[in-house]
Amino acid sequence: MTPAQLAALLHDVAEGRVAPETAVDRLRHFPFEELPFARVDHHRVLRQGHPEVVFCEGKTAEQVVAIAQSLVAAGGGFLGTRANEAVATALRVQFPGMQWNPLGRTVYLPPETGTVRKTGTILVVTAGTSDLSVAEEAAVTAEAFGHGVVRLPDVGVAGLHRLLSANDRLQEADVVIVVAGMEGALPSVVGGLVRVPVIAVPTSVGYGASFGGLAALLAMLNSCAAGVTVVNIDNGFGAAAAASRILAG
Amino acid sequence: MTPAQLAALLHDVAEGRVAPETAVDRLRHFPFEELPFARVDHHRVLRQGHPEVVFCEGKTAEQVVAIAQSLVAAGGGFLGTRANEAVATALRVQFPGMQWNPLGRTVYLPPETGTVRKTGTILVVTAGTSDLSVAEEAAVTAEAFGHGVVRLPDVGVAGLHRLLSANDRLQEADVVIVVAGMEGALPSVVGGLVRVPVIAVPTSVGYGASFGGLAALLAMLNSCAAGVTVVNIDNGFGAAAAASRILAG
Amino acid sequence: MTPAQLAALLHDVAEGRVAPETAVDRLRHFPFEELPFARVDHHRVLRQGHPEVVFCEGKTAEQVVAIAQSLVAAGGGFLGTRANEAVATALRVQFPGMQWNPLGRTVYLPPETGTVRKTGTILVVTAGTSDLSVAEEAAVTAEAFGHGVVRLPDVGVAGLHRLLSANDRLQEADVVIVVAGMEGALPSVVGGLVRVPVIAVPTSVGYGASFGGLAALLAMLNSCAAGVTVVNIDNGFGAAAAASRILAG
Amino acid sequence: MTPAQLAALLHDVAEGRVAPETAVDRLRHFPFEELPFARVDHHRVLRQGHPEVVFCEGKTAEQVVAIAQSLVAAGGGFLGTRANEAVATALRVQFPGMQWNPLGRTVYLPPETGTVRKTGTILVVTAGTSDLSVAEEAAVTAEAFGHGVVRLPDVGVAGLHRLLSANDRLQEADVVIVVAGMEGALPSVVGGLVRVPVIAVPTSVGYGASFGGLAALLAMLNSCAAGVTVVNIDNGFGAAAAASRILAG
Amino acid sequence: MTPAQLAALLHDVAEGRVAPETAVDRLRHFPFEELPFARVDHHRVLRQGHPEVVFCEGKTAEQVVAIAQSLVAAGGGFLGTRANEAVATALRVQFPGMQWNPLGRTVYLPPETGTVRKTGTILVVTAGTSDLSVAEEAAVTAEAFGHGVVRLPDVGVAGLHRLLSANDRLQEADVVIVVAGMEGALPSVVGGLVRVPVIAVPTSVGYGASFGGLAALLAMLNSCAAGVTVVNIDNGFGAAAAASRILAG
Amino acid sequence: MTPAQLAALLHDVAEGRVAPETAVDRLRHFPFEELPFARVDHHRVLRQGHPEVVFCEGKTAEQVVAIAQSLVAAGGGFLGTRANEAVATALRVQFPGMQWNPLGRTVYLPPETGTVRKTGTILVVTAGTSDLSVAEEAAVTAEAFGHGVVRLPDVGVAGLHRLLSANDRLQEADVVIVVAGMEGALPSVVGGLVRVPVIAVPTSVGYGASFGGLAALLAMLNSCAAGVTVVNIDNGFGAAAAASRILAG
Amino acid sequence: MTPAQLAALLHDVAEGRVAPETAVDRLRHFPFEELPFARVDHHRVLRQGHPEVVFCEGKTAEQVVAIAQSLVAAGGGFLGTRANEAVATALRVQFPGMQWNPLGRTVYLPPETGTVRKTGTILVVTAGTSDLSVAEEAAVTAEAFGHGVVRLPDVGVAGLHRLLSANDRLQEADVVIVVAGMEGALPSVVGGLVRVPVIAVPTSVGYGASFGGLAALLAMLNSCAAGVTVVNIDNGFGAAAAASRILAG
Amino acid sequence: MTPAQLAALLHDVAEGRVAPETAVDRLRHFPFEELPFARVDHHRVLRQGHPEVVFCEGKTAEQVVAIAQSLVAAGGGFLGTRANEAVATALRVQFPGMQWNPLGRTVYLPPETGTVRKTGTILVVTAGTSDLSVAEEAAVTAEAFGHGVVRLPDVGVAGLHRLLSANDRLQEADVVIVVAGMEGALPSVVGGLVRVPVIAVPTSVGYGASFGGLAALLAMLNSCAAGVTVVNIDNGFGAAAAASRILAG
Repeated sequence: MTPAQLAALLHDVAEGRVAPETAVDRLRHFPFEELPFARVDHHRVLRQGHPEVVFCEGKTAEQVVAIAQSLVAAGGGFLGTRANEAVATALRVQFPGMQWNPLGRTVYLPPETGTVRKTGTILVVTAGTSDLSVAEEAAVTAEAFGHGVVRLPDVGVAGLHRLLSANDRLQEADVVIVVAGMEGALPSVVGGLVRVPVIAVPTSVGYGASFGGLAALLAMLNSCAAGVTVVNIDNGFGAAAAASRILAG
Repeated sequence: MTPAQLAALLHDVAEGRVAPETAVDRLRHFPFEELPFARVDHHRVLRQGHPEVVFCEGKTAEQVVAIAQSLVAAGGGFLGTRANEAVATALRVQFPGMQWNPLGRTVYLPPETGTVRKTGTILVVTAGTSDLSVAEEAAVTAEAFGHGVVRLPDVGVAGLHRLLSANDRLQEADVVIVVAGMEGALPSVVGGLVRVPVIAVPTSVGYGASFGGLAALLAMLNSCAAGVTVVNIDNGFGAAAAASRILAG
Repeated sequence: MTPAQLAALLHDVAEGRVAPETAVDRLRHFPFEELPFARVDHHRVLRQGHPEVVFCEGKTAEQVVAIAQSLVAAGGGFLGTRANEAVATALRVQFPGMQWNPLGRTVYLPPETGTVRKTGTILVVTAGTSDLSVAEEAAVTAEAFGHGVVRLPDVGVAGLHRLLSANDRLQEADVVIVVAGMEGALPSVVGGLVRVPVIAVPTSVGYGASFGGLAALLAMLNSCAAGVTVVNIDNGFGAAAAASRILAG
Repeated sequence: MTPAQLAALLHDVAEGRVAPETAVDRLRHFPFEELPFARVDHHRVLRQGHPEVVFCEGKTAEQVVAIAQSLVAAGGGFLGTRANEAVATALRVQFPGMQWNPLGRTVYLPPETGTVRKTGTILVVTAGTSDLSVAEEAAVTAEAFGHGVVRLPDVGVAGLHRLLSANDRLQEADVVIVVAGMEGALPSVVGGLVRVPVIAVPTSVGYGASFGGLAALLAMLNSCAAGVTVVNIDNGFGAAAAASRILAG
Repeated sequence: MTPAQLAALLHDVAEGRVAPETAVDRLRHFPFEELPFARVDHHRVLRQGHPEVVFCEGKTAEQVVAIAQSLVAAGGGFLGTRANEAVATALRVQFPGMQWNPLGRTVYLPPETGTVRKTGTILVVTAGTSDLSVAEEAAVTAEAFGHGVVRLPDVGVAGLHRLLSANDRLQEADVVIVVAGMEGALPSVVGGLVRVPVIAVPTSVGYGASFGGLAALLAMLNSCAAGVTVVNIDNGFGAAAAASRILAG
Repeated sequence: MTPAQLAALLHDVAEGRVAPETAVDRLRHFPFEELPFARVDHHRVLRQGHPEVVFCEGKTAEQVVAIAQSLVAAGGGFLGTRANEAVATALRVQFPGMQWNPLGRTVYLPPETGTVRKTGTILVVTAGTSDLSVAEEAAVTAEAFGHGVVRLPDVGVAGLHRLLSANDRLQEADVVIVVAGMEGALPSVVGGLVRVPVIAVPTSVGYGASFGGLAALLAMLNSCAAGVTVVNIDNGFGAAAAASRILAG
Repeated sequence: MTPAQLAALLHDVAEGRVAPETAVDRLRHFPFEELPFARVDHHRVLRQGHPEVVFCEGKTAEQVVAIAQSLVAAGGGFLGTRANEAVATALRVQFPGMQWNPLGRTVYLPPETGTVRKTGTILVVTAGTSDLSVAEEAAVTAEAFGHGVVRLPDVGVAGLHRLLSANDRLQEADVVIVVAGMEGALPSVVGGLVRVPVIAVPTSVGYGASFGGLAALLAMLNSCAAGVTVVNIDNGFGAAAAASRILAG
Repeated sequence: MTPAQLAALLHDVAEGRVAPETAVDRLRHFPFEELPFARVDHHRVLRQGHPEVVFCEGKTAEQVVAIAQSLVAAGGGFLGTRANEAVATALRVQFPGMQWNPLGRTVYLPPETGTVRKTGTILVVTAGTSDLSVAEEAAVTAEAFGHGVVRLPDVGVAGLHRLLSANDRLQEADVVIVVAGMEGALPSVVGGLVRVPVIAVPTSVGYGASFGGLAALLAMLNSCAAGVTVVNIDNGFGAAAAASRILAG
């Protein structure tokens, strides 16, 4: 129930077309349809121009195609994460413009009106080449959400000069997403070099006692650089969503 | 070595006052003093006007007082976290203006020039009364860093109407810090209600299988609300620092 | 040994057909066959009319069919959980009336006398679409045990209005089973909305630091909503069995 | 806003005393005060006659007394859990009728109108004498909530005859709460003996690899007795609350 | 009900003094009092001559004294584990013959009839001096249970010659209890040197990543020496009880 | 024995004061090339008549056949654990008498001289049908080591009468191996019913929070039945080896 | 920028060929290219003559071949770890001299100038045959780095004489790498026998409660032999790299 | 050597064919009472001049004094770790020359002959001031073992310039011990800057999800810098012992 509908109902009451008791009943049963946050939720999608995001893992190609058709029919575009080749192939049959990023395992179709550009540059820093898949998920998501993205790969802390020589890019970013597996030390170092928000993404890259990314996750949570925040293991999408909250919030 | 000092040195070389070999030696031995990030680090403190932050736990009152004297002598103000009553008492003997917040366990003395005010309002949301100490640490830190702070306590998810009736405050915040122990569900709910950045702080509040805050930590890392980020258990200071990076970055 | 058999034995003793010492021996060696709980156990199955439940995972199709034949021959019906397609196909060859639910991975054949209807409605609430398989296992089990079932899917806490708009269904349930993965927050919210028993089922849905459902499990055990109880990860069957104890107990 | 207030407002609109636009504004800003669950929440306390429950651990005696005064002034009675002797003593100075149970660490003052009696008997079964504190917390809570309580202590599974000889009490209960530490086996055995709901409470009793109750918790979650549910470690209060949902729901 | 009582009852039936129905009732209600294992349990204590064992931790001195008085009054002796000095002092006031072993934290009063000697020698091997307390608990328990005990302390694997030079004692034992903290390697080495049963006791001795004995526990469970069994961390009593089952079983 | 002592002894031999045979005896007890355990180790195999045991998992069929040929050529028989069908088939081509137990995943060829029979009966108790594979590994190993074996399957604690009605078998065993997954409660119950050694084997059977057998392992380590010992998860072989140490030690 | 280049630049400034401001700019933007450690890093590879090391797991054969071509073209040789057969085959098509070690899963092509021999012998000790793969990775890496390697396999602590009889080899080593799974006890024993550095490598060999090598890892970290250090689970390469730091450092 | 061979040798001695001294030599290489490691172990202490090391935690002051008296009487000096003030005071009463280091919690008395100086410099690098206690334990131990020690405190990775500006000290060290808590990133950075051995010491410094040093431990085990090795949490002594093996081995 929109405010307009509410106003109409109350006018009906005022003018005797609807009895007060009837209005009480209607208001009692639908108090939540008209909650501000529900409307806002809906409007935000339209206003921001970024597509719905679908987690493709565990869904069949048919299911993903069906969801995409529904979203595209509504003009909203489509961003899929954790999409394997079968899903990507099936989507591209239906949507030739669908962009398939095999490294980041993403599929992306901009909304009809095009991606709405927004201010701000997100720097996606990666420790090792094995972390690139998660970093690419973050980068593609950030671009689909309308933000500028700069990639800074392979600057792990065991070869510090690689990071330090990219100081310009670090200083120019509005938000930095740092993706690292193994010992997860890179966000602490980056956090000491920049003043802007740093979002750390632990990855499951590593072997032995990395325990599926637990080592990197704990390291990042315990960062000695004040104000570094952390998202779930391998959650490149989540980091980009957090960065977008900062830039578009 | 500042850029100005470097320029002066090179002018001396150009004008023959310093031999090239001597300049090589001076540059070789101090390459790091003049790193952009080092200078920036130093300048940021002065420019932002917020004081150094000292983690008081595990330090004697004498040690904390000595650090405070050094910082205050430099005009930089003082913010101490995890300060017990002994520390606070000792500090107030020396610094009558020191503000002692027993709930948040903080001690704060603004810099001589006063706290530099900055734009932005941080909403600190708390699930239960037992989480208030951590929330207060975040709030005091945020205020010392120059940000506006609004507190929204005791809105745990088991009584949802308390949170929903504060929707105005949620919508007006620039950043939301959500502090919760036990099952750590509140950041997910808040993340679904607002578009701005949400920083989740798990607390060690709980018993039994909360395992010192692990339950809340894992819940927050697995939040179904996209773009929620997490800091360490009980790390109210870290959340405020992250919020400050967002607002001042 | 039934009470009747015991009475007969004692009459034999009374009438001299059996010596007391012989009776002592017989009673000494079979004290447990006649335990009340053993009899009750057997009687309960017949009286309640719900079939034996077989956990099919790790059993071959042949083994499951053999068990089903034995149970059906006894007139008791058959409910199998964690049944894959091979098992289902083999069963339907033998039992054309066998109902195969691929989402819930269940196979069900009502007893000859039909499912005994019992009072009470169980509401099965699900946080996300990925949790539906576990929820369906709960729903099918509850139906096979004779209870009314209402499904309320996809009402995760990040979009609270979806849950709140279904308040009627929440208020009308006699027991609520809440199935959720990721941060496992939904049972706390539901627990605050209803007065009836809430049984929480954590699922292994999630990635990264969900650690196979551990995050959701810990969250549910630490629920701030008083009186929420928890079953094992992915244990939809167990939740339904618990609900049935409540309604039929 | 109660339904009556809402009706009054709408009558005012119908009769022209309040303009529709004014009503829209009032309804927009207070949608949550009148939520069904909020009212219900409030009414339930009055209707059921059981007092508010306060977790005293981590609160000073002064704080607990203040809370108690507020609650008692409202006529609602008072139940405190995890209360140490200092808290109990302070309360009894103010409220001579306050009942202090040092074993269960509870303090209880019935509401002015007395405890409202409800149907149903809760059997609280305990494995060992060290588990008695948690069991007593459950028992006192259940009694304060108006339920009949029977205690069956010290029936651990290593001496099975103790449990079996109490079969009558097991069969007569409406809900069974089973409290056990160490290997946590007792709920499985009890679950096989009774048909009614079984709520398992792991305790932190044990040493070495009990890991603060983790061993018992995991055992109970993995119970081979279908339909046993579990609450948090040492959470006797939670078990009683769950039992009360079953009996009063 | 003893076999004699049962025989008497049945004779009463045979001779018409008790009606069969009455006997059914009496047998129905007391099936467990006469269970073989219950009687055996009771008889074993008397027959083996070893006292009841009381875990003193968490009990007051008064409580322990009361238990001891009850047991001693029954002539059964008393063995207390985890007894601190306060408990020991209180006991010795009442029972001057009570033996207090501060290293093993045990208190022991032999039964009136003296400790019943049994065959077999238990060798208690200890890795380091810090493990001695747990080893002593095992040794005192074994002696109280009537077994011969030989102690072999401080033969950790980092100085292998110490163990090898005690080969005679290893070869002469009937059961070997191996107590070790830190890396818990000693049982594997001992298990390779002897053919008799080896019972491994991990201790919580160690620091850092010993995690309260977890490291030693896992090592012992993974022993490459076939047939080594393990008890709980620090459970010297349990190891002695297991050894006693072997020697007296 | 120091070098000096050794030199003195040899001078005594050289000068006829000590006979060579006497010197052999004195030296026999100290040198380790000829250590009793090395010799004994070798002799034990011959004397006890049980074959070498080979862990087949991770070995190719060719590798296992080669090992078997070597052992059989030496007349020692062959016992393989964790053998899949490919291994079994390859072995039976070479050794038609090889006994393949698909449930226990064992292959067994008695030594030429036949299995040496030894005293003692091992009872292998199993909680559920899913634990049978581990139980069978224990049973086959025990038989190959020359011990009598009685199997008691499917007596989980949720249906206690099944176990209690087998009390005779429990009382007649010399050692009891108890195999259980899920909550691992069975060893505690059995430990309270028998006086002989009880060896608990946790299995990885279970789902959700069984965490690969961790739940059962912890439960067994925390058994409230004194003197129960534990082997590694799924280690049926180890339990049989421990039982054999007891019976043959 | 080398010191020579820096000197040249400064001479240009001194002689007016470069303006001071231009020099400031050049120095400001390239401070890190000339860091001592960056140059050293590069030089070390050439000077030590050992090839780059590539972790092949998770890379396609094509990717590995491309990296190898790049490295070999630069004359630097190639060492690949965790290489499966497909990778090895593809490499050997391009580089017939590539050495494929299927046990250690390594591929190795010496640099054009041959492996640079260095002083020192590394003894690689292995507990069981299942640990050989990790040990071989260490051995091949050590050889490729130019060190002498001696292998001592299958000397697990349950058969101590095997290790003790190899005492000569232990005493002659300059560094000992000890590879062990299961209970991880071998490094403690070896650490007590030698004075030289001991590097412990836990392996994921084991089952049940080895938890993927965690048991061995914790045991090694808690070694009672002073001065034993540990690398990650299964990290044979890392152990060899550590040994090489010691011998070549 | 078999008994027969031994008998033959002794007969040869008895009959003059082999001189006793020759026999001593042949026997010297096998018996273990006189094993090289035992003798060596003893000789090493004398030769290296470093004292026995005593872990004082959990020992009374009296016990430590007694041990010290025994060691000092033998002329061997004394090094105690984890010594509190009571222990230190008691020792200094007896040994006025005992050096008490309250930060490192060490007590040290050089042997009568003075500390034997050895080659090599150990650099002890510390991340934060809270790690200094562990670092000091390492430094004092290294000095007592005769090595040169340089301290480099407070160079955590969040302020990288502090570490980089100390590059000279890094390059001059023979072994680097890196002590860090929180995220444990420093060893990875140092490992990339130096070629010499790097020994990482995780500390229990940190809060929340550092879990007593687990976060730092896992990070260090997963270091992306090849060849970094790790010792137990807070084990400064162990790191120094490992460094001493490298320098003195």
